[in-house]
Amino acid sequence: MNKPLRVAVIGAGAIGGYYGCMLARAGHDVHFVARSDLEYVREHGYEIRSTNETFQIKPAQVYSNPHKIGVVDLVIVALKATANSHYKELITPLVETKTLVLIMQNGMGNVETMAEHIPAVQILGGLCFVCINRVSPGVIENYLSGRVYIGEFMGSYRQRTIDLVTTFEEAGIECYFSKSLDATLWKKLCWNIPFNGLTIAAGGVTTQEIINDDSFRKLARLLMEEVRAAATAYGHSITDDFLEQQFTVTEGMADYKPSSLIDYLAGRDVEIEAIFGEPLRRGTEKGINMPHLESLYLLLKGLVASRQQA
Amino acid sequence: MNKPLRVAVIGAGAIGGYYGCMLARAGHDVHFVARSDLEYVREHGYEIRSTNETFQIKPAQVYSNPHKIGVVDLVIVALKATANSHYKELITPLVETKTLVLIMQNGMGNVETMAEHIPAVQILGGLCFVCINRVSPGVIENYLSGRVYIGEFMGSYRQRTIDLVTTFEEAGIECYFSKSLDATLWKKLCWNIPFNGLTIAAGGVTTQEIINDDSFRKLARLLMEEVRAAATAYGHSITDDFLEQQFTVTEGMADYKPSSLIDYLAGRDVEIEAIFGEPLRRGTEKGINMPHLESLYLLLKGLVASRQQA
Repeated sequence: MNKPLRVAVIGAGAIGGYYGCMLARAGHDVHFVARSDLEYVREHGYEIRSTNETFQIKPAQVYSNPHKIGVVDLVIVALKATANSHYKELITPLVETKTLVLIMQNGMGNVETMAEHIPAVQILGGLCFVCINRVSPGVIENYLSGRVYIGEFMGSYRQRTIDLVTTFEEAGIECYFSKSLDATLWKKLCWNIPFNGLTIAAGGVTTQEIINDDSFRKLARLLMEEVRAAATAYGHSITDDFLEQQFTVTEGMADYKPSSLIDYLAGRDVEIEAIFGEPLRRGTEKGINMPHLESLYLLLKGLVASRQQA
Repeated sequence: MNKPLRVAVIGAGAIGGYYGCMLARAGHDVHFVARSDLEYVREHGYEIRSTNETFQIKPAQVYSNPHKIGVVDLVIVALKATANSHYKELITPLVETKTLVLIMQNGMGNVETMAEHIPAVQILGGLCFVCINRVSPGVIENYLSGRVYIGEFMGSYRQRTIDLVTTFEEAGIECYFSKSLDATLWKKLCWNIPFNGLTIAAGGVTTQEIINDDSFRKLARLLMEEVRAAATAYGHSITDDFLEQQFTVTEGMADYKPSSLIDYLAGRDVEIEAIFGEPLRRGTEKGINMPHLESLYLLLKGLVASRQQA
């Protein structure tokens, strides 16, 4: 393998915990900054449950803030996008000119926001097409053999991009190189927008209930078509087959609850702007009409706001 | 007053019970066909609670089916639109050539369906802009001094239309003549579609929560604008002031739950097609794009379907 990396994982929930532990098991020196599970993980470590194996990282190197970690080779940012206002305090202590910052967050606008704090050239994006949930403190389940696409925020790929993809692959993560993060992100939103959105709007149901009901399924497809229209306006083509495949893939997920639904049901912040608001604004900027997304966005915003009052 | 009428009320829930009792109190000979509240009302009669008075109709002439009533001067049809497949068996025993049939139901398509069973010339529509709920068996509350618009299904008005409006007025009901039922119905839908729909989609909230939240309110307005566009395509103009007035009126309703929401929460049939599906189809037929309504319609259909499975 390439030489072991010093890695810091910021936001050690489902995604951060999972990929951090996969890299730790592969021999990298991984440090986690966690908030809610800090005490538990400090004592018990992490447990990762996949479809075909279970392993533990114990003890896990876990911290309440990044200052004790110091500069690293790779920062994995897996915060919820609603916490992006903390980027500066969380990321800058870990970064010098050779540090790569890999954003593995949901939705649009994260890499751009990060570029306000650290040089754009150090930023990469990692887009996860997976079903990973934190099922209890320190315990993370991966329900579906998924994949990660890694690409550069600025310019075309270089050797380091390939090296990072290789590092992930060698750690047992199915990983691909994305030559356009933007194209890959619009594709990911073809799933996130209908399924993260409708499972909440439909009153807290699983993805299975969305694809099993004709009306929900039709609405999901209409939403995908608006996302595709916006993607096309930005120069990224998405095929009919790809849209249909989103339903096929979802059938394999059985009773999956997307992260947004879990957050919503638990009364936590929901990534409304990153997943729904920002794509709507970007599509609208290009003159694309996205009324089904607008309906969903306004409904979700209202649902979250009225839940917080309750 | 005009001579007392023999009246049959079909579907003696909130609307049928209220207007039937108002006519009974004014001296008309009113017979109710009730289903769920039959036994209770037979024993205890009806109680009507309005903002400024409470009265009882006891004993009430209440029946399980129309056959014992025989032919009447006026049939008031206040069934839920989801029960329209029972029109024939419920209405025809009451009707001869001089009988007027006044449809006081929610949504679109009721008068047309009735015209499959009795001569179109005998049909009138009565559109209620009110907040009336059945709060317990036989007990009906009227929260808002509302109004009824009565118009002919076919052709222009005639003396009988004026007589019927007068009959309602003399019974203490604020009642107006509508020279176009279709125009009045589209206007009524400017309220029903956003408020009946969003109170369900928003997870079972009151109208107050819709108008107090910026996102819900914006979505309500977008829905109203689509309804207006469809109305305009059918030759009925609706002003900005009228749309804004829907919010003002709703503020006066305080914590009101529309009938559709009450039905939904109680696990009963919801008038999805009459209130949402039929206006969507009629707008679409005229080439009007109604994507916000389409989103709401599909979401509600899915919500009702998945509720029935639960």
